Amino acid sequence: MRASAALTAPEGAAPEDVLAWLSRRADQGGFSVRPVPFAEADGWYFRADTGDLVHRSGGFFSVEGLHVRADSGEEEAAAEWHQPIINQPEIGVLGILAQRRGGVLRFLMQAKMEPGNRNLVQLSPTVQATRSNYTGVHGGRAVRYLEYFMGPRRGRVLADVLQSEHGSWFLRKVNRNMLVEADPAADIPEHEDFRWVTLGALGRLLRHDNAVNMDARTVLACAPVEEGADRALHDDTELLSWFTGERTRHRVRARTAPLGAIPDWVREEDRIRHEAGRYFEVVTVAVEAGTREVARWHQPLLRPCGLGVTAFLLRRFGGVPHVLVHARPEAGLMDGVELAPTVQCTPANYAHLDAPPPFLDAVLAAPPERVRYAAVHSEEGGRFLHAESRYLVVEADAATAAAPEPAGYRWVSLDQMHGLVRHTRYVNVQARTLLACFACGAVDL
Amino acid sequence: MRASAALTAPEGAAPEDVLAWLSRRADQGGFSVRPVPFAEADGWYFRADTGDLVHRSGGFFSVEGLHVRADSGEEEAAAEWHQPIINQPEIGVLGILAQRRGGVLRFLMQAKMEPGNRNLVQLSPTVQATRSNYTGVHGGRAVRYLEYFMGPRRGRVLADVLQSEHGSWFLRKVNRNMLVEADPAADIPEHEDFRWVTLGALGRLLRHDNAVNMDARTVLACAPVEEGADRALHDDTELLSWFTGERTRHRVRARTAPLGAIPDWVREEDRIRHEAGRYFEVVTVAVEAGTREVARWHQPLLRPCGLGVTAFLLRRFGGVPHVLVHARPEAGLMDGVELAPTVQCTPANYAHLDAPPPFLDAVLAAPPERVRYAAVHSEEGGRFLHAESRYLVVEADAATAAAPEPAGYRWVSLDQMHGLVRHTRYVNVQARTLLACFACGAVDL
Repeated sequence: MRASAALTAPEGAAPEDVLAWLSRRADQGGFSVRPVPFAEADGWYFRADTGDLVHRSGGFFSVEGLHVRADSGEEEAAAEWHQPIINQPEIGVLGILAQRRGGVLRFLMQAKMEPGNRNLVQLSPTVQATRSNYTGVHGGRAVRYLEYFMGPRRGRVLADVLQSEHGSWFLRKVNRNMLVEADPAADIPEHEDFRWVTLGALGRLLRHDNAVNMDARTVLACAPVEEGADRALHDDTELLSWFTGERTRHRVRARTAPLGAIPDWVREEDRIRHEAGRYFEVVTVAVEAGTREVARWHQPLLRPCGLGVTAFLLRRFGGVPHVLVHARPEAGLMDGVELAPTVQCTPANYAHLDAPPPFLDAVLAAPPERVRYAAVHSEEGGRFLHAESRYLVVEADAATAAAPEPAGYRWVSLDQMHGLVRHTRYVNVQARTLLACFACGAVDL
Repeated sequence: MRASAALTAPEGAAPEDVLAWLSRRADQGGFSVRPVPFAEADGWYFRADTGDLVHRSGGFFSVEGLHVRADSGEEEAAAEWHQPIINQPEIGVLGILAQRRGGVLRFLMQAKMEPGNRNLVQLSPTVQATRSNYTGVHGGRAVRYLEYFMGPRRGRVLADVLQSEHGSWFLRKVNRNMLVEADPAADIPEHEDFRWVTLGALGRLLRHDNAVNMDARTVLACAPVEEGADRALHDDTELLSWFTGERTRHRVRARTAPLGAIPDWVREEDRIRHEAGRYFEVVTVAVEAGTREVARWHQPLLRPCGLGVTAFLLRRFGGVPHVLVHARPEAGLMDGVELAPTVQCTPANYAHLDAPPPFLDAVLAAPPERVRYAAVHSEEGGRFLHAESRYLVVEADAATAAAPEPAGYRWVSLDQMHGLVRHTRYVNVQARTLLACFACGAVDL
């Protein structure tokens, strides 16, 4: 699959029309999202025995405590901390329906409101459903277009893989990422919340801040890409061996603990916060919406403190583009470690420490001609409130490019990344956003 | 890698000499393994608060309770049960050192005593070490040949992947499986407990009962095999999508629980057993050995009730061999489901039920000319006592071969299996034993 130059009709809507439509849907939706004290959050309460924040149905998700002990070999100090974490064990479906028209692949994208999104309405997958959604547990409408992803009528599968989500905020969360191609001859009605958009147009939209939501980005990252026979710096066996070594070296032991009893975190009337004001807060919001499955509800959201920076350093080896990948431990990841961007952090959380994370300064100080991609995107707006990060692809300078890779980092070719993302839990969700930008042609290579 | 016809010197020991050597090592070792009551097991005790069986050092492993709830969609009844489970969160290393001599790849295999093995001494990987072993926590000797697998002197990696172990008996256990090739010119001393053995000789040895231990089998399963361009019945995308669907369909929720409080299991002086005498028992043994790292010790072992049957049905599509793979849920697997053999069960556990597991009768009733492989092997002798299963590869009869695959089963080509086993947690440990038999040429194809 290659990003086509086709940006407009007849295959799909033009990028500027999509942006105008998203804006219109946001205005027309009559949406409001406002913080409320925990005591006013209908349906949600703190369990008396554990202090965990749960829904009275026992469904949706819960906010629990987590006790983490992590070490990475003899040389570095072991770390131990407590934190709140979102526990949502069910596997949701994120599915994008594709269809070939006039030789061009187009994607059926949804204008979807999520309370935590900046701008509220962003471009989303065709289907974005928790198990509760698609089995009807919370009494909403049937999920549109679900039949193309499940059951006997489904189309030809282009990608279908379980992928992890944010390891610092979710406890072992995975979602099913599906890209399915419908028959070219099928007449698929475009419901008013949906538009056909080409890959080229998606690439353009990804250059805008907060236009394409996280769920769409992670599915697009899994899109099959024509693999070249290009030589990578490290062959696949070496790459997998290095990664196995990193997974073995880092011991991340995370156990749930009663939220009401974890140290260093303070519960107030309207938030749970770290005592130093770092990392994130847990809040609840009241949501009103005209177009979502249920028109009014309350829910907890996790609100990060500060804008993140998420960046790949880029360089070519023998003309083949490679990104500098970090084998990054995260407490909520099932395997402890996944492949992350070169830089993935919220700089404000490091202000009290002596040293910034590796490569952060190199990324932030890069002159404009080395910045191949830059845009701010929101993370999952159904669970995170204004969780924004500046996503960057930056050409490495001569000094960085020439230096040997530090422990925990490897240059990996884009082809290798596209190969790994077909399998579960190699590539973390932040790296998948940047991979989607490559796949859709949003990065100036 | 292909199984070579070379069975003997100068590249490696002949199969019959290896068998004689294993037998001699068993006789010379002065080994004894005898059951003892829990109260006499030095260093092991039941925690007062939970009833979990633990070591006083806090190390090695523990036997805890597990509460499992499993369902697989609307049609089938949900299941719920409790069981003891072995919890050993550390990642061990199973490594086989290879070296090319005269064009033939040979493997440095160890004669290793494990208390639970039938025959006690079996052929083992070059290195078989828990993290406690190789960091010296329990005060044993340094691990021989470890330098070829770790650190700056290590050889060329042929395979290096984290693999799950028995999902019914271990809680989310993974080990690092490594196959490393030393420089052909290196002079590697053959310590008295070690012998060089060719792939062809390993294939012959795998046709003997209880000669090659589980740890050796799982590493051999990961050996790189020359991949053909053969067409599989289901292409890789279809295969991965089916597997993703199976992982999504099965919900396996397993939480540890106090061993002392789980229902249906009875703790007696010398065993913990299921009240109906099914599944397995937890016992402790006193071990005396002359050649192991520590000469005397006590430890718990899990003793299954009855001989298992583990079998792949085999057929060709367009001349290409395929095995019928089962997407099998197991409570202790991190992802709930992995790819298992067509049949994997202990028939005695089904005696009280109306129906045997699918394909069990087809496998057991097969006439000799359709049995392409048959041998009894022991599972991990360091944790399981006489955990034996009859491993089989059986050519499918015309009726089975012609029928559509039932839900949860797929015909997968051997090439596809060899490709998947390079990644973590696709192929379960029982299927890996049979894959090793294919890789070593032990199956009459």
